[in-house]
Parts: sequence; C-alpha cells; structure tokens
Amino acid sequence: MKKNVLADLLNIKYPIIQAPMAGGITTSKLVAEVSETGALGMIGAGYLTPYQLKNQIDEIRSLTSKPFGVNLFVPQKFEVNTQDVNSVNQILDAINKELNVTYTEDLVLPNFLEEYEKFNEQIKIIIDMNIPVCSFTFGIPSKEIVASLQNANIIVIGTATTAEEAMEVEKSGIDIIVAQGAEAGGHRGSFIDESEDSLIGLMSLVPQVADTVSKPVVAAGGIMDGRGLMASICLGAVGVQMGTAFLTCDESGAHYVHKNAILNSTENQTVLTRSFSGKWSRGIRNKFILDMRAYENIFPVYPVQNNLTQLIRKASSLQNNKNYMSLWSGQSPRLAKRHTVKSLIQNIIKDVKDITSSLK
Amino acid sequence: MKKNVLADLLNIKYPIIQAPMAGGITTSKLVAEVSETGALGMIGAGYLTPYQLKNQIDEIRSLTSKPFGVNLFVPQKFEVNTQDVNSVNQILDAINKELNVTYTEDLVLPNFLEEYEKFNEQIKIIIDMNIPVCSFTFGIPSKEIVASLQNANIIVIGTATTAEEAMEVEKSGIDIIVAQGAEAGGHRGSFIDESEDSLIGLMSLVPQVADTVSKPVVAAGGIMDGRGLMASICLGAVGVQMGTAFLTCDESGAHYVHKNAILNSTENQTVLTRSFSGKWSRGIRNKFILDMRAYENIFPVYPVQNNLTQLIRKASSLQNNKNYMSLWSGQSPRLAKRHTVKSLIQNIIKDVKDITSSLK
Repeated sequence: MKKNVLADLLNIKYPIIQAPMAGGITTSKLVAEVSETGALGMIGAGYLTPYQLKNQIDEIRSLTSKPFGVNLFVPQKFEVNTQDVNSVNQILDAINKELNVTYTEDLVLPNFLEEYEKFNEQIKIIIDMNIPVCSFTFGIPSKEIVASLQNANIIVIGTATTAEEAMEVEKSGIDIIVAQGAEAGGHRGSFIDESEDSLIGLMSLVPQVADTVSKPVVAAGGIMDGRGLMASICLGAVGVQMGTAFLTCDESGAHYVHKNAILNSTENQTVLTRSFSGKWSRGIRNKFILDMRAYENIFPVYPVQNNLTQLIRKASSLQNNKNYMSLWSGQSPRLAKRHTVKSLIQNIIKDVKDITSSLK
Repeated sequence: MKKNVLADLLNIKYPIIQAPMAGGITTSKLVAEVSETGALGMIGAGYLTPYQLKNQIDEIRSLTSKPFGVNLFVPQKFEVNTQDVNSVNQILDAINKELNVTYTEDLVLPNFLEEYEKFNEQIKIIIDMNIPVCSFTFGIPSKEIVASLQNANIIVIGTATTAEEAMEVEKSGIDIIVAQGAEAGGHRGSFIDESEDSLIGLMSLVPQVADTVSKPVVAAGGIMDGRGLMASICLGAVGVQMGTAFLTCDESGAHYVHKNAILNSTENQTVLTRSFSGKWSRGIRNKFILDMRAYENIFPVYPVQNNLTQLIRKASSLQNNKNYMSLWSGQSPRLAKRHTVKSLIQNIIKDVKDITSSLK
C-alpha cells in the first residue's frame, strides 16, 4: 500500500483499526494478533474495571511488542429512577423466570459518580502504562483529558456519527475522528442527537465529515473487506475501523452462538434497539428485540437498562440460547467469514492490490 | 475513464445515470443536457400521462440525438377505503384551509385498473418510440414486459434496496440492477419489505448485492461527486445513479424553494416519511412532516395518500411555501451545489482523475 496518514500516525503497517468491541470480544489474543499482523488491535475497555484493564494490557504485552489501543466509554450524566427500574423488571420478569435468573439477589444498579471515577482511573492506567492510542465513544472527554493524553504522546481518537458531531470532536483537540455510519453494528456513538436523524449512511457521511473537519477521518460501519477500505479512501477517509469482520475471527472472544448468528444472516436481519443497554445499537433481530419493541421508548438510558438486562444476557449466553443475547452485527453479515485475523488481513491487502491495479 | 460495462451497455461516455426524479424535476432541458454531456438523462415518468410522456420524448429528441431513458412506477394492487380517506382529509383539513385549497371540488381518487392501463400505455410508447433504456421502481414488471422491451433492443433496469430484492429483480431477466441505499432521497424502491429493515447503507448494500447477483450493479443514494463514483466502483458497482446532485442543477425543474432547502441543509436534516405519498421517502424535515409524524401508521398506501396531498403540495409550491412541499433530498445535502449539468459532470470526471492518480 501507498504511504498513509493513519498508518504513519499510529505506527502500523495497514490503515485498519480493529473496532473496540466491548463485552469480552476483544480478547488479548485478538488484540495482539491484529497488531502482530500490521493493523491496530484495540481493547474494548468500556465495561472493564481498572484492575481488569491493567491485567489485559500486561497480557497483550506478553504476546506482542506492536502498538495497540484502548477504547473507553465517556460517561454521560444519568440518574436511576426506582419506578422505571421496577417497571422494566416487571417486563423482564417472565424472561428471568424462563432463564432461572434470580435477579433480586444479584442486580447492581449503576451510579454516575462511580462510573466517572472508574473512567478517570482507566485514563490514568492508559497514561501510566504508555498505551500509544486511546479512543473514545458515547461523547467527548474534557479538553484536559485530551491534553493530558497527548502530553503523554498518546494518539487520541474520537467518534462521530454526523458532521455536526465531528466538528465538536475536532474542537476538543482530538487527533483522529472515526465517522461511524448507520451501517455499524453494536452501540451508536451518537452524543448530540441520538434519534434516527443521526443514522447517516457512510457513502454520505464520510465525504461530508471530510469536507467539514481538517483532522484525518476513519470510516466505520459495514466495512468487511478491501472493497470497503478502498471505497472509504476514495470518499476521503484515511483508513477504516472494522468490527463485525474481526468478531467472527477465531481469535475473538465472541460466543460461538453469536458468530454463527452473523455467519447465517442476511443484510436485512439487523435492527436497531435500545432494549439491551438503553442506547441504540445494531444487532441481529432475535426474540428479545422483538418482544421488547413495544417498550423501546420507556427503557431508562444507558447504563441503567444495561445493568437491568445484564443477568439475562449472561444466563442466555451460558445456556447457548440466542434468544436473549445481544447479537451485535453491522449491516454486511453476508460478507462475514469464519477466518483467522491473519487471513482476514491478507485478503484485504490482496483486494486492495487487485482493485488498485484494475483502476490503472 | 477506463472501459466500463455500464457505459458500453448504455452507449454513453461516463457511467453515470441521472436519477429519474418524478414530479416535474426531469425537464426536457435537464434530460437532454445530461445526455449531451455524456451521462444518461432519464425522464421520471411515473406521474406522466401517456400523452405527456410522448410529448416530452419528442421535445428531448429535438434537443439531443444522444441516448436517454424513461423510468416507470410498477403499479402495485391497492384499494381505496372511503373511511381512511375521510380520516386523512380530516387531518389535512386545517392545512387545506391555511392554503385556501378547496379539495372537495378537485380531489381525484386513484384506481388500480386505470393505473395499470396507464402503465401498459407507457410501455407501448417506450417501445414504439425506440427509447433505448427503460428503468423501473416500486417493483418488478412481468417477465413478458421485460422480454418485450428487450426484444425491441431496449436495456431494462430494475431497482432493489436489499440483496434479497436484487435476486428477485435478476430472476425477471432485467439487464442492470440499481442498488438503492438508505442514503437515497425521494421514494424508496423497496417492494418485498418496506420496513426499516430494508434501509441498508450503500457501503453494506453494494458489495452484498454484487456478490449475490451476476448482472451489473449501479449504486444509488447520497452520491454527489467523483468520490462517490470511485467508491461505488471499488465496492463492486459498474457506475452510479445520482439524483440530488442533478436536482440542484440550473436545468432541473425543481422549485427554487426546493433547491434552496437542499443547498441550506446539513446531513442530519433529512428524514423518512410516508406522509406525502403513502410510500416511505426521504426529504428535508419541514412542518408537514413534523405535523404528520403522529399519523405515519394510518396513512393509506401509495398512490392513495399521494392523491390526498396533491392539492396541498401544489398550492404550497405555487405560494413558494416550503412548509407543505415534498423537499426530497438524499443524505448528502452538504455536498449539493448550484451548478450546471456540464460543470457537475466535468467536476466528477476531474475528481475521478485525481483519485485514480492518487491511488497509483
């Protein structure tokens, strides 16, 4: 490949970032193998305690000396309303019974101050352990945090789902902007307007963001191969962030039921839902999403709803039951393959060469 | 540009189709100028009577000897329910009064048999007048119609919004498939599932359709410049169909209020609505769309709702009042420019050259 701004900035070979999928998908093996192969491995650390994050960083460092990154959720203020919690628990009651979940004993409700403290500890670990790249979603960290990361020579990446959000990310001083299209699987990174109005397809989003900001733009959402990488570069991006393509890799920690659900799905089987976490996310339509459709507007915000469904998701997963698992996927499941990280990246580079020579 | 399947099939210079925007936008001047400049001009003939269509074809032929095409709406069975019509008229009553529309005198309700007869007459004109290209949306014409067009040496183009629909289009024998992404302005071409599940972003849609069918695929939705054309080709398309970019051309018949609304909008100001026509369409959010949000699920299907709002749209347009006009636009209004067809196409070709040489 030609000289590339993103590869240079991140000190990697190929302009490909493995999307930081939280919830056990980004195993140390996945992150290390992605970085070893010349792309950027990322820990999806949103749900990790500082202790877990520190341990995973140590583990990855025992597997690779290549650069990798950490992604954090920027905490947004929230309050827990007991009445809302009780209503949702009532709705979830039948599922809890079906899965033998005794939620009354284990249910822990989140607390904003604790979340915020955890976030600051995560930042401290990233600086103390000299992690070369730190990315954010669900909002923008304070200018002070951005500056303290940059002072420690850490490249800072933000997430935007509209050109309007990209301008706000740029104002914070962040180095690179991920433009997340409507195609993307998992959680939406939207933070100004979380309505359907922020669902912009990548073909529209990338050139509009690229024209609006001066920082380098990385395309994310539905990109699975070298065609998507080349298309993104034509649109004005400097590289791509890919999630679903890495999720079905042998090295990923995604449940086999989740991997199989993606491998057996078509483009029109993913939907947006707030039912799992309180934040809009794209996943494969299953029983939980369909059963919860009537309540989409009453669920409490993230992370409250996320905690309320936590034991259901865990039990469903332990029982290999896809009905109540969050089967995150972008809109390109027909392009998903069972493969190793190495073969995924080799195929992308082969595609890139073929397309480049066909354009000559 | 390199040798291109689409340009060869359509006997044009550049692999660009001007989207067939119905409702007075595709003036003879626009269609002729697009074809003169080396792309394919298209008449959006969905709403035209056979007499109007014949006249427009004659007019365009007096302006150019280059090939151009005609697009038709495939009629889908519908029934008019008087009770539904009365409910909607009640909802629209205040707007009719505000605009001084006396709908009781002029309101004409559609009839399926008449629509179907009109469609067959349109097909007959296209064959009799040796139109080289005929495209369809809202469904697939019968195999007999496809064959009769092809027997007359007419290239037939179908529209699909999912890979599933593309397979159905291919089965009908159609020559070229337009893959319409979620980004697209105006009416959705969906015909198997018109729900949000058919809203696939182009970055996901094009490669999945290209892998699923063997016919050439044309990308449509949010494409405004050479970046979008090159990206589409990287994704596996043979060319593009562009609507909004041509709508703001001097030669287009769009109302200046409509053109200005696009030129002053941002990526997150377009929304999907059924309120104008009964079919999901993307346009710039205005008073009508917002006022009608509560009723989205009760409007009758196309073309019934379309007839019910016809006089409101007409009056609003005559009064230069953007509140009640259908301001169709794709998701890339930030890229829209006030320009001529010639300068639009010249800029696309310049972009293509620049991008191609940057990839070498």
